[in-house]
Amino acid sequence: MGTTTGPVKHVVLFSFKETTTEETKAELIRGYEDLTTKIDVMRHFEWGADISVEDLQGGFSHCFITTFDNVAGRDAYIPHEAHQAYVKVLLPHLEKLLVLDYVPEVVC
Amino acid sequence: MGTTTGPVKHVVLFSFKETTTEETKAELIRGYEDLTTKIDVMRHFEWGADISVEDLQGGFSHCFITTFDNVAGRDAYIPHEAHQAYVKVLLPHLEKLLVLDYVPEVVC
Repeated sequence: MGTTTGPVKHVVLFSFKETTTEETKAELIRGYEDLTTKIDVMRHFEWGADISVEDLQGGFSHCFITTFDNVAGRDAYIPHEAHQAYVKVLLPHLEKLLVLDYVPEVVC
Repeated sequence: MGTTTGPVKHVVLFSFKETTTEETKAELIRGYEDLTTKIDVMRHFEWGADISVEDLQGGFSHCFITTFDNVAGRDAYIPHEAHQAYVKVLLPHLEKLLVLDYVPEVVC
């Protein structure tokens, strides 16, 4: 188990519903990116579409990772008005959603 | 969609079976860490146990992220003898497993 004093990585995996258009998918991802301009505890943010070849992605198509300085940053992010407004727009378009946070043990 | 020329992040989520002891869990995690000494394409490796408070982790308890320089690194890692030997030891202890790879779009 990691300590809770170091940086926190916030891992979000999701997949879109079949009915969500490519244009809307791109808009929704831009909306997630735009949160970084509104929520200052988002110290680092990156994302990407799945390119795994092992067929173990369990139906998830995208990964988004936010880094917070500490648990307090994560705890400020979750209820943040801009985050909550984004979640309201995003959720109706999601087929699957998974969120996991961890304090990294950096091995190399 | 990311390009496939940049670094590749290899995200592994899993949870252990109830029958796996804490001692064995720690050994298995050390085994994953030890792969970094045997497989040189593992440029960066970090892991952590879940500390999410949103109850959306879908039964997954641990996250491991390996960074490869490119898709070729990822493609060398998967069939690597040391990786395959580790997978053989690990799999009988896993309740759930998810693997997703992405080329990061770094927003900030």
